[in-house]
Amino acid sequence: MNQTQLIALDWGTSSLRAYRIGHQGVVLEQRALSTGIMHLPTVTTENQQALGDKAGFELAFRQACGDWLAAAPPTPIIACGMIGSMQGWCEAPYLPIPIAINQIGKTLKTVQTSDGLVVHIVPGLIQHSTLPNVMRGEETQVIGALAIAAEQRGKHQHSVDDVLIGLPGTHSKWVRVHQHSTEPTIQHFDTFMTGEVYAALCAHTILGRTMQMDAAFDFGADTEKNTANHLAFSRGLEVAQTVAGRAGVLSTIFSTRTLGLTDALDGSGQREYLSGLLIGHEIAVLRASLEELVHQPQQIILIGDATLCARYKTALDIYEIKGATVTAKATERGLWMLAKQAGLVSANAVPV
Amino acid sequence: MNQTQLIALDWGTSSLRAYRIGHQGVVLEQRALSTGIMHLPTVTTENQQALGDKAGFELAFRQACGDWLAAAPPTPIIACGMIGSMQGWCEAPYLPIPIAINQIGKTLKTVQTSDGLVVHIVPGLIQHSTLPNVMRGEETQVIGALAIAAEQRGKHQHSVDDVLIGLPGTHSKWVRVHQHSTEPTIQHFDTFMTGEVYAALCAHTILGRTMQMDAAFDFGADTEKNTANHLAFSRGLEVAQTVAGRAGVLSTIFSTRTLGLTDALDGSGQREYLSGLLIGHEIAVLRASLEELVHQPQQIILIGDATLCARYKTALDIYEIKGATVTAKATERGLWMLAKQAGLVSANAVPV
Repeated sequence: MNQTQLIALDWGTSSLRAYRIGHQGVVLEQRALSTGIMHLPTVTTENQQALGDKAGFELAFRQACGDWLAAAPPTPIIACGMIGSMQGWCEAPYLPIPIAINQIGKTLKTVQTSDGLVVHIVPGLIQHSTLPNVMRGEETQVIGALAIAAEQRGKHQHSVDDVLIGLPGTHSKWVRVHQHSTEPTIQHFDTFMTGEVYAALCAHTILGRTMQMDAAFDFGADTEKNTANHLAFSRGLEVAQTVAGRAGVLSTIFSTRTLGLTDALDGSGQREYLSGLLIGHEIAVLRASLEELVHQPQQIILIGDATLCARYKTALDIYEIKGATVTAKATERGLWMLAKQAGLVSANAVPV
Repeated sequence: MNQTQLIALDWGTSSLRAYRIGHQGVVLEQRALSTGIMHLPTVTTENQQALGDKAGFELAFRQACGDWLAAAPPTPIIACGMIGSMQGWCEAPYLPIPIAINQIGKTLKTVQTSDGLVVHIVPGLIQHSTLPNVMRGEETQVIGALAIAAEQRGKHQHSVDDVLIGLPGTHSKWVRVHQHSTEPTIQHFDTFMTGEVYAALCAHTILGRTMQMDAAFDFGADTEKNTANHLAFSRGLEVAQTVAGRAGVLSTIFSTRTLGLTDALDGSGQREYLSGLLIGHEIAVLRASLEELVHQPQQIILIGDATLCARYKTALDIYEIKGATVTAKATERGLWMLAKQAGLVSANAVPV
């Protein structure tokens, strides 16, 4: 336990992931808890008196890493995600983009626990475009993914000016980073509520009524059922690039139901088709926005759940956006990089 | 009571409207019940034994118009809407379009009650396009609206070849009718799940969390609050025709939240903005599809809830689709027209 260098928390709306990190950013231990900021532990009157208004956060914090801290004090602590939102433990206001990523770690907010520990909180980013855009947590994943990519490039000795990073999920983000002979700078990002819209449509509209919510298809398996579901997903992916797709999401989603009514899709097929259809609409917009760029990204990185990234990879292939790779463990690496920027851990303890 | 000519039912998923109709299609009495096909009355074992599998439908039917029928037998009975779906009382399969509207009344299905009454059920319509499309209930409203429009034109003595009929609602439909020196023919229709998506986004996604679900704005009132809400709605309407709008619904809806985070919209403003944004995306697609037509509609008719039609009228104005008028009482008129086509009521008892 004595080699702990950093306690890093990825603290979102519905979950909290804790990492115990050692020299050179190596993750020694990690935990996943369900105590996201909307699901904090119950606060008793006694807790409230002892810990004050923010008792729920402190209780969750102790559950997540109290033993680690007790075994190896004093250890710096860093946290990213919705914990820094207005509804979080301590608000870390959004920083405007464009922003060089090495500036983010220099603006961490701090909150002190009742026993004097200092938690450093990563700010989110805001894009003041016509329709403003925000991220919170993804900036950390972007920083981590860029560090991992730079290391891998180091081995192959080629440079990359423009990177596109996709973070599929409840709210998908697509982030453009420019790093031509400068510190990497986040230039632009877009948000698509694809995952959350999919969940709401399945659970709370007529489209879900004829769906079967059994196991999703598996890219590997080749049973008849699996193949049919995979085909339904691919069929959905294509819609946005057909003439019929011009009618837009509000219209095309209804075909989930009508393809069921006409026996073209069964219950699980409808579910996979809708998944493909929404992702396809997202990727069609992404392609159109890339076509308008002067400088195309030389590298495309996907970050997120492996199965979901595989779905997005298929979508990118169909829309002829080539060469995306999937990066894992970007959050913990990003938190480590930010802690270095902030001087919380030794700068010469570089990741290998 | 002795002048009852027709009992007409508009029997949907969540509600049942019953009309007692006299000579020349005049509505003598009407009722709204909550016994849509998904909310039928509770069936006791005794009912079940007496009335069989479909007892729920028969109980709802008796509640809706049993007294009318008892007072004036024998009266023909007609019903449209989801009552004719696979989950309804008796399936009336979809008829393919294009179809002349005078053909629809000739294909009614019938179901008999336990005491020998015959209920005539209107079929829905299907469009076998790449993404199939269906309607059930709206065909009756379209027929009614065309009859009302023809009467009104009769007074002004001009003819109209192409009509576009909009039916905003849970699932908005836009129906194109061609009637150049022929019986009016339904040529094409589109569906947008705008109303249902709006409800699901407000109730079941992060967008609803910061919304205030107080009274919707009123087109007439001029309080400060009302004006702000009306402006928020208009702001939403515009989005789809801006550069930012090209990102599509999955992306633009996120601005409902970010405009709240940046204090540009309050809780009720966010709700109105999202309503405008979704309707705007629908109307932007409609405009694009109209631009591709060789023959532009010479008449645009909106059917539906008055407040919702006013919202759509505003949207059409902003998207420069001119001259839409709103028609009321289309369903009851359509049921009367269909009963005439079917020979259930005397053809010379024409509406005036």
